Amino acid sequence: MTVALASATRSRHPSRARSPVKTLWLVNGQPTGVDPADRGLAYGDGLFETMGAVDGHIRWLDLHFDRLEDGCRRLSIPAPPRAALGKEIAAHCPRQGRAIVKLIVTRGTGPRGYAPPEVAHPTRVLAISAWPEYAVTNYRHGISVHVCQLRLGENPALAGLKHLSRLEQVLAELELKGQGAEHGLLLDTSERVVGGTNSNLFAVFGTEIATPALTRCGVKGVMRRAVLEAAPALDMQVSERDLTLEQILGADELFMTNSLFGVWPIVRVASRRLPVGPATRRILGHFGYSDAA
Amino acid sequence: MTVALASATRSRHPSRARSPVKTLWLVNGQPTGVDPADRGLAYGDGLFETMGAVDGHIRWLDLHFDRLEDGCRRLSIPAPPRAALGKEIAAHCPRQGRAIVKLIVTRGTGPRGYAPPEVAHPTRVLAISAWPEYAVTNYRHGISVHVCQLRLGENPALAGLKHLSRLEQVLAELELKGQGAEHGLLLDTSERVVGGTNSNLFAVFGTEIATPALTRCGVKGVMRRAVLEAAPALDMQVSERDLTLEQILGADELFMTNSLFGVWPIVRVASRRLPVGPATRRILGHFGYSDAA
Repeated sequence: MTVALASATRSRHPSRARSPVKTLWLVNGQPTGVDPADRGLAYGDGLFETMGAVDGHIRWLDLHFDRLEDGCRRLSIPAPPRAALGKEIAAHCPRQGRAIVKLIVTRGTGPRGYAPPEVAHPTRVLAISAWPEYAVTNYRHGISVHVCQLRLGENPALAGLKHLSRLEQVLAELELKGQGAEHGLLLDTSERVVGGTNSNLFAVFGTEIATPALTRCGVKGVMRRAVLEAAPALDMQVSERDLTLEQILGADELFMTNSLFGVWPIVRVASRRLPVGPATRRILGHFGYSDAA
Repeated sequence: MTVALASATRSRHPSRARSPVKTLWLVNGQPTGVDPADRGLAYGDGLFETMGAVDGHIRWLDLHFDRLEDGCRRLSIPAPPRAALGKEIAAHCPRQGRAIVKLIVTRGTGPRGYAPPEVAHPTRVLAISAWPEYAVTNYRHGISVHVCQLRLGENPALAGLKHLSRLEQVLAELELKGQGAEHGLLLDTSERVVGGTNSNLFAVFGTEIATPALTRCGVKGVMRRAVLEAAPALDMQVSERDLTLEQILGADELFMTNSLFGVWPIVRVASRRLPVGPATRRILGHFGYSDAA
């Protein structure tokens, strides 16, 4: 992990990296289209991972594979072997610079109807695309967050998974566009805070760093797990628990995480303004974002 | 509508119909694959209709198009014109016999991320496949229904739509397989009855025919609408309202609807046994299923 971190810090500036200009798409290893009978298209019946690559290495690769395999197990999709996936990614990932590697695993094709086939032959879709230009100000001065009107439906059977049935997130993004806001905060139907439309949320209360438990909806992000695992070594006490919007608005500090952009402080939610505080700065420093912040 | 019904009655026996053996797939009119960057695959960002064709005519075509257009409007997807869709279907639908026509409309491709592109160019996927052999006993003697453990998440923004983010239905079908049951009844997280995994539910209470309101989840089926619209002419009082499992188990009669199979009486839910009662028989007769029942 240390090597990946060092690499990430070294080549954080996308303008100096050799990133692909056009996205490369491979379906089961071939530059072809997806079978229109694929259940990923028909029913959102599959999972995906979006990963950051630095000089040919995927940051948090084991954590991404852990989540993908957990998702396959919970959805009864045969998980493609890690070694084969890793080999395919390595064969196509640029050796220098930064890139985004997206991997979709669907249940494959099947007969008509929701019922999965007795034996599934999963489809892999691999996409390698250019690294986005994340604004340095997001790390340094933080972001403003709009509380979405849309509430996420709750289903423990799907909670935590990065599955393909993501129409709620699409609608949340449509709502943001209408508001002129760039970052959205989502609550569930029981008014618990879930996280950002494509990120997880952490709230600092004194010596505690809390993040929504995500037992009923939401995606358990790889960067969220990295923060939870790093916190004890930073003398921070972490907790995964239910959080209301009122509690969030009363936090000392807030930050959002995502395995691509890493960590962004939140300096405004609704009408509440917050500082980029000491706990958030320590997290930023630990993960190599100190010079950006 | 009368002509379509008459046709449906005339050629109900699949063995005598000229139905396609292999499914025909067309993506934007071409026998090709789906762009792996399509948002239908990436995020379940789209809608579909599954329609019954009889001798080249789609049963309930206007009702299917109504729902598709309502879905496009609610998801901010530009709706493909009816005339063009109808022409494409007519060009490929078998002139004789029965077939299933499935139409998927996605938001098309877009850049990475949940946020939809400013201008969407929808993708059409058309599939024409063989008519399934529905068991005559389902109409005549009814079906048994298992109450699924899975609860549907609630989201009014998606309620009623036949969208592509259907992983909950896939999980419900996986659960049924484990139970040895063929038909599942789904409840939402608030313990309201929603309907079957791929069908709508009607409950008869005296002179009232009630069906779940579907304001928080579920798909508003085309056959459900046909029953609601036909009921007054049959001197039946219909209502769309919230229904608990306890209320359903106390109904005089129950039946399920789906635009492909039509109407199936329910003769068992959990441990409750029910008759194929007079109201259900009247509905079966009205829609041309009397000789099957």
